[in-house]
Amino acid sequence: GARIITSPADLWKEAELIVKVKEPQSAEYDLMQKNQILFCYLHLAPVPELTRALMYGCVNAVALETIQCENGHLPCLMPMSEIAGRMAIHIGIRYLMHDCGGPGILLEGVPSVPPCDVLVLGAGTAGINAARVAANLGAHVRIMDINLSRLAYIDEAFDGRISTVMSNDHNIEKFVPEARLLVGAVLVPGGRAPILVSRELVSEMHNGSVIVDIAVDQGGCIETTRPTTHDDPVYTASGVTHYCVSNIPGAVQRTATQALTNATLPFVVKIANEGLEKAASKNSALMLGINIFVPKNGDKGVVTCEPVADSLGEAFVPFEKAACLKK
Amino acid sequence: GARIITSPADLWKEAELIVKVKEPQSAEYDLMQKNQILFCYLHLAPVPELTRALMYGCVNAVALETIQCENGHLPCLMPMSEIAGRMAIHIGIRYLMHDCGGPGILLEGVPSVPPCDVLVLGAGTAGINAARVAANLGAHVRIMDINLSRLAYIDEAFDGRISTVMSNDHNIEKFVPEARLLVGAVLVPGGRAPILVSRELVSEMHNGSVIVDIAVDQGGCIETTRPTTHDDPVYTASGVTHYCVSNIPGAVQRTATQALTNATLPFVVKIANEGLEKAASKNSALMLGINIFVPKNGDKGVVTCEPVADSLGEAFVPFEKAACLKK
Amino acid sequence: GARIITSPADLWKEAELIVKVKEPQSAEYDLMQKNQILFCYLHLAPVPELTRALMYGCVNAVALETIQCENGHLPCLMPMSEIAGRMAIHIGIRYLMHDCGGPGILLEGVPSVPPCDVLVLGAGTAGINAARVAANLGAHVRIMDINLSRLAYIDEAFDGRISTVMSNDHNIEKFVPEARLLVGAVLVPGGRAPILVSRELVSEMHNGSVIVDIAVDQGGCIETTRPTTHDDPVYTASGVTHYCVSNIPGAVQRTATQALTNATLPFVVKIANEGLEKAASKNSALMLGINIFVPKNGDKGVVTCEPVADSLGEAFVPFEKAACLKK
Amino acid sequence: GARIITSPADLWKEAELIVKVKEPQSAEYDLMQKNQILFCYLHLAPVPELTRALMYGCVNAVALETIQCENGHLPCLMPMSEIAGRMAIHIGIRYLMHDCGGPGILLEGVPSVPPCDVLVLGAGTAGINAARVAANLGAHVRIMDINLSRLAYIDEAFDGRISTVMSNDHNIEKFVPEARLLVGAVLVPGGRAPILVSRELVSEMHNGSVIVDIAVDQGGCIETTRPTTHDDPVYTASGVTHYCVSNIPGAVQRTATQALTNATLPFVVKIANEGLEKAASKNSALMLGINIFVPKNGDKGVVTCEPVADSLGEAFVPFEKAACLKK
Amino acid sequence: GARIITSPADLWKEAELIVKVKEPQSAEYDLMQKNQILFCYLHLAPVPELTRALMYGCVNAVALETIQCENGHLPCLMPMSEIAGRMAIHIGIRYLMHDCGGPGILLEGVPSVPPCDVLVLGAGTAGINAARVAANLGAHVRIMDINLSRLAYIDEAFDGRISTVMSNDHNIEKFVPEARLLVGAVLVPGGRAPILVSRELVSEMHNGSVIVDIAVDQGGCIETTRPTTHDDPVYTASGVTHYCVSNIPGAVQRTATQALTNATLPFVVKIANEGLEKAASKNSALMLGINIFVPKNGDKGVVTCEPVADSLGEAFVPFEKAACLKK
Amino acid sequence: GARIITSPADLWKEAELIVKVKEPQSAEYDLMQKNQILFCYLHLAPVPELTRALMYGCVNAVALETIQCENGHLPCLMPMSEIAGRMAIHIGIRYLMHDCGGPGILLEGVPSVPPCDVLVLGAGTAGINAARVAANLGAHVRIMDINLSRLAYIDEAFDGRISTVMSNDHNIEKFVPEARLLVGAVLVPGGRAPILVSRELVSEMHNGSVIVDIAVDQGGCIETTRPTTHDDPVYTASGVTHYCVSNIPGAVQRTATQALTNATLPFVVKIANEGLEKAASKNSALMLGINIFVPKNGDKGVVTCEPVADSLGEAFVPFEKAACLKK
Repeated sequence: GARIITSPADLWKEAELIVKVKEPQSAEYDLMQKNQILFCYLHLAPVPELTRALMYGCVNAVALETIQCENGHLPCLMPMSEIAGRMAIHIGIRYLMHDCGGPGILLEGVPSVPPCDVLVLGAGTAGINAARVAANLGAHVRIMDINLSRLAYIDEAFDGRISTVMSNDHNIEKFVPEARLLVGAVLVPGGRAPILVSRELVSEMHNGSVIVDIAVDQGGCIETTRPTTHDDPVYTASGVTHYCVSNIPGAVQRTATQALTNATLPFVVKIANEGLEKAASKNSALMLGINIFVPKNGDKGVVTCEPVADSLGEAFVPFEKAACLKK
Repeated sequence: GARIITSPADLWKEAELIVKVKEPQSAEYDLMQKNQILFCYLHLAPVPELTRALMYGCVNAVALETIQCENGHLPCLMPMSEIAGRMAIHIGIRYLMHDCGGPGILLEGVPSVPPCDVLVLGAGTAGINAARVAANLGAHVRIMDINLSRLAYIDEAFDGRISTVMSNDHNIEKFVPEARLLVGAVLVPGGRAPILVSRELVSEMHNGSVIVDIAVDQGGCIETTRPTTHDDPVYTASGVTHYCVSNIPGAVQRTATQALTNATLPFVVKIANEGLEKAASKNSALMLGINIFVPKNGDKGVVTCEPVADSLGEAFVPFEKAACLKK
Repeated sequence: GARIITSPADLWKEAELIVKVKEPQSAEYDLMQKNQILFCYLHLAPVPELTRALMYGCVNAVALETIQCENGHLPCLMPMSEIAGRMAIHIGIRYLMHDCGGPGILLEGVPSVPPCDVLVLGAGTAGINAARVAANLGAHVRIMDINLSRLAYIDEAFDGRISTVMSNDHNIEKFVPEARLLVGAVLVPGGRAPILVSRELVSEMHNGSVIVDIAVDQGGCIETTRPTTHDDPVYTASGVTHYCVSNIPGAVQRTATQALTNATLPFVVKIANEGLEKAASKNSALMLGINIFVPKNGDKGVVTCEPVADSLGEAFVPFEKAACLKK
Repeated sequence: GARIITSPADLWKEAELIVKVKEPQSAEYDLMQKNQILFCYLHLAPVPELTRALMYGCVNAVALETIQCENGHLPCLMPMSEIAGRMAIHIGIRYLMHDCGGPGILLEGVPSVPPCDVLVLGAGTAGINAARVAANLGAHVRIMDINLSRLAYIDEAFDGRISTVMSNDHNIEKFVPEARLLVGAVLVPGGRAPILVSRELVSEMHNGSVIVDIAVDQGGCIETTRPTTHDDPVYTASGVTHYCVSNIPGAVQRTATQALTNATLPFVVKIANEGLEKAASKNSALMLGINIFVPKNGDKGVVTCEPVADSLGEAFVPFEKAACLKK
Repeated sequence: GARIITSPADLWKEAELIVKVKEPQSAEYDLMQKNQILFCYLHLAPVPELTRALMYGCVNAVALETIQCENGHLPCLMPMSEIAGRMAIHIGIRYLMHDCGGPGILLEGVPSVPPCDVLVLGAGTAGINAARVAANLGAHVRIMDINLSRLAYIDEAFDGRISTVMSNDHNIEKFVPEARLLVGAVLVPGGRAPILVSRELVSEMHNGSVIVDIAVDQGGCIETTRPTTHDDPVYTASGVTHYCVSNIPGAVQRTATQALTNATLPFVVKIANEGLEKAASKNSALMLGINIFVPKNGDKGVVTCEPVADSLGEAFVPFEKAACLKK
Repeated sequence: GARIITSPADLWKEAELIVKVKEPQSAEYDLMQKNQILFCYLHLAPVPELTRALMYGCVNAVALETIQCENGHLPCLMPMSEIAGRMAIHIGIRYLMHDCGGPGILLEGVPSVPPCDVLVLGAGTAGINAARVAANLGAHVRIMDINLSRLAYIDEAFDGRISTVMSNDHNIEKFVPEARLLVGAVLVPGGRAPILVSRELVSEMHNGSVIVDIAVDQGGCIETTRPTTHDDPVYTASGVTHYCVSNIPGAVQRTATQALTNATLPFVVKIANEGLEKAASKNSALMLGINIFVPKNGDKGVVTCEPVADSLGEAFVPFEKAACLKK
């Protein structure tokens, strides 16, 4: 099989397969070699320079975020959603504390002092993980979604300990002001998150409440959120603390790396053992992950991921066609 | 031992020991015979005629409600409190239904429709049983008391699924209006229940909400409650349905009778085997249950229960003295 | 999009889209206008007059009960099943009480008096909701079905707190007589429920036990059941109280309406925004909901639901054909 | 402090304090030295030879089984009861299996095959541990006792998952025949266990059912039980397998030894640091554990445990008097 | 429909449909009659004599183990996996006891003595059942698999009470030595189980630990395992007790038979009512179960199960072709 | 009753009863007026200046930390222990994160990455609250204590989800190195906490692990701990992060104040209504809270708390004597 080299830049040039977490930075573009395979989170749509660097550099590029199973699961995104959901509650607890600038409230209360209300917007993987952590601590948790089957699942799986609420304007206006901790977890695969909570509604929350918007790197689902970084993670708007770090799992990077490796290693092994073309032709999830593919004897890579092609104005070539597979 | 006869009136006169649930009705006063032992709920304080009928009829009377263990437990009241507490929730659910005159609401909700708030006043046996049933169904339950140890116990035993709240005016005013079902379970041993909820506060509850006041036979802990009967159990005040049947366990009398028998039989057996005087002298809980005692060679019974004596203006004679026990 | 008018009869004539819960009553047939869209529970099979009124009145009719997702889910029936299942236990508890004519038994018992046996026939949405409520209260619950995967799911999800039993004659004969509360929840999509419990077996139940047959509007799964109404909900047969109201959720109509709206609104919005034909052509669940469709330039509606066509002897025209969709 | 030597016989003679699990066997009587302290389970009442060997050998003897806290707890018996209770279920599971001579039944069932009934007699430490293990596995468990407070505790602590039943003839006759596994855990401190289940009732159990009588070394609470050993642990009577090993914890002796050491070590340390007399005078639980005490300058030990003195016809001398403590 | 005769050998010859659990033994080959239908576990691949006896005897043979639903479920294997998984823990508990040759350890510990570690390899039906039983008893349980979705399901369904671990060499080497009970439950449908644990690693386990390898009849997933029988179930290797009975459910054969009947009866009824050909043509799961089929007018049976054909070098004829079904 | 003024310094002089949380700072000594009553945490033993300022200033001083019920409960310390215990886990989670200087580990793990080990030393109120939070999150929790009854309670109340371990050197050496989070919660009423964990043992913990020593204001139970403040809460020793803020609840001061008020208000009301002397003479818990009492007509306060008197070399005068109560 192929030799796998994980990241250190000087070894990069020799590798056949490069496995990273994050996309290459511009300084790294020159390291990439013809016919190498790059395997990492890419998010190419808004980054035409990188896309073109890959295409014209003849680099095969697999984007973790577009690997997708037949049932719709995104196996390389799920661990990050699990972590971000759980972290959202821990972060909320931290910024409700006085020594971190908060009002000095213990989320779960103590005997004789009732717990806080937590509202989670979105009942996907991140949302359910957030709701579960908060409920297990003893907080009063509501979760909102427009997917009734998902709400019915949560009601049954947690035996009513998490209150399920249809997501609509009426309910959002009713329950946001009661929440001490509001978690935005509305993730729309591949698209911009809808704005569910207006600036005005945020201003009705208790002073010093906390918003953690996991959806911030998709634009956020709350009007007042804008991306922050681990170096300067929070800001105050309308009297509410906002934590909007795009890369929440970065705060527990050791756990995140293990979880991500557990998810990606099976794909890496397939590529290393069989080569990208053969591995992808036998595994439809991996095939969907290929964003740039260099056809045999081709002089540049082609875009094999339709949304990326669309957003960059490049031609879209299905992998099967690019690889001349007989279907 | 003594022969035990349970109730039928014609056999009454022959019995040495009469075991009933309720106190004798006036029509039954003549059935009572000298030196008989009467064993039932008595609640003598507000009923001077019965007290005197017993005293001058030379009847030894054991009141179930004053039998008390050294740790303060009231073993013959506990089963009734357990039942009344559990029933309070079932009754509340019934009167929230449309076919029973309610607004047509399912207490525990369904997926996408969140559950109702339930507020339980008092964290004694009745209160904790009410809170537990409601929480297990999936309602959002708060329980109030002034006893912090009790609240800490509930928080730990139910692992935070029941929110505990200090009972004070601030909290009552905050949480009563949110409750769709308000359970009054403030039982003060031997005294009048305090009025915790004013008529004005009741009027702030949602239209069609339900109040079940278990404490009604002690005067009730809600200003708008007055006793009702199983024949006409509810009335509406300030737009709120009130269920205030004094004898809630009467609606499940088969279960109640079994539970009560399980609690009282050990005492009945002791009396039957050893006679009242000897049994009581060996069992301090039973001793506290004796309200009227006929001293050997006495020509009338004396009141051996201080609160009864006080409220009726009779002399109080401790049992040990009445029975000439050397202490 | 279209204007939506919800029910009041005088506005009916002006509406393009009529959203109701129940099917039109005969007095309302004249209100219906050509090319209107009717969106409600219809159950047309046994009602030829209504079917023809719709066909010849050129009314497009969407039946909530036949909207079906690709995985077999019936999204507009599920909320009603959830409610009916939960209500079945509350109703059973009510009619075991003495003040409602029952034997005076508290379903869940109290300490020292063990709980009653509850038997649920059918492990679909209604059955599992009934079993869950009863088990959470502390009753001893058995659930029967012929679907082993479903039983395995219940065993795992409720961690053994609900006993699962294969549905067959042997087990039915063994466990029905032990049940104080028997819930019939055998729902066969679109067909008559099978009779699982004979009149003779009912007569072996304890006197005063309760049967709630949720399947009654499909004929019932117990020989002794016949439909009743909220005005006169119960009758006694073989010494057992039967509650067989066809429309159980009507007793909690506020909760039911919210849950139903949460389920149906997405479909209503689609129709209002895009028109019925376009909306249905893009959404296979909605397409299956159309029972009567008026082809463009057609002079009457055609039956697009095969079972309805079959049972009424009308011709069946698939929607795609009626709408001249290219497939 | 004193030197502690744990058991090996040749070192025995040099030790000041002998810590063992079991009482000395007759062969060991000669090893005991004047003024030694012996600390182990003793159960002297039925063994006059040992009692006299200790008395006339001037050995101070502390019996683990009579060490008792002020609240009635028996700290050195509790670990053995916990283990025996848990083991009772494992043993029952084993002997229901076909390869151990049983009918081939899995106690907890599997999906579609409901679990067995387990009946536990006695709600003390052993009984509650047995009931908990069985309930956690998914069996249908009933526990019986005459102590209502204890039943109420179990009902609340296990949230209704264990059915509590008043112990009386009616209930025993009703529930014993339904049990596949019957655990006798009726322990009367210091006395003979009452016979609750007659031979006739045992014969009504299903063929191949299992009885584990933990109370067997107090005579057993089931008429058909007689002590067995680990070498030959079971016999069949009335078609029912009986496991009646007196020393159940012996099968998990490593766990049992650790648990026992955890319970006894604090007492051993006190004795070693302060001497028996001083340690006992400061610790009332330990004082109650002393069965034989050698007064200063006495020429033989006296019996300081009243039941032992009574049953052997020896004089009873309270420890305080024997030790000339000023009270 | 056909007459069903369940097993007794003398009736065999008359039957049209033979329903057994295990495959015919060589002594039974002569009993089989032309055109009979045999319905049992077959496992033909390694048994060419039986395969040929069926083919040349013109016997239609349905193998329970290859009946497979469209979603991949193996409905007639699942009950056996459920039982084997649960039994694995009971067996482990047994062989940790001293009276069964073990070190005398109670798996779940007692207060003050912490529970043992249990490691389950494989998170399929058997693995999850084993893990659940151990966790419910209070053991510290880890479960390993390479299927991340499955691990995420377990984490959520058991709310973190079972620790999920990615199966890889690093983790196996880390956690095997800590386990007192190691359950091998790695079942690869139709193939040999992979060896996950080396002999060397087994030798690092605590002396007297127990291995139960459920996968043993697929070769086992632990290097040191080899099949044993109920008559001689365990052996010691590297100081560890190995229980490797191929047919674990045989120890609870009554429960197993009920569960298996519940799973198979629907198929038997279909065959009896409609004949094998028609039943299989309407039910794809049953069709996959047919291993040998006798075509109409054929003079011998053909192999309709590809893996069986492959491993025996016989020609594979798809059922549809053998039955001349128009597809 | 008396007028109550809560804290602001300028009003201090006018008040009869001063209710504070913390002891007066030296700058406040002059504010105190003759015969005032001071009600706050005092911890006088190590602060002779304050003690004398109170004595010679004729100030009656009630110390919250010595108010003690007859059953040993310390009602005004319990809420702080509950909060500190819960906070310990949140703090541990925070300092395991990378953005707070930790190794970047999520305590509870995610599917496929197992949770961390948490070790809690001490099973009092603080310890049990810490253990419960960690266990509910899904961590693997061990709790150690020398009190077997307490461990048995935890095992039963949390149904085995928290592993209980006897506290001794062997176990501490075994389990400390495995812990990623070590919580010191060994509180000895009124005394110095024992050092259970040596510096050497701390150095065996994983790099970047976290220690939270709640017992730090009693000297700490871990050799490497020394008090820190909210301004500079952590330091690293032996590669382990130490959080040793003496006043942990200060980080959630709003919750803490409510909880404390709920605990103290009943005492404040009694004092305000009846005066200190009368209130204390009727309430033994309050009486034990009085550390300095000014006798009627006395010219200075006397020390009524024996340990304070002992440690400062002042004379101890029992309250009853100081107040000339007839006993």
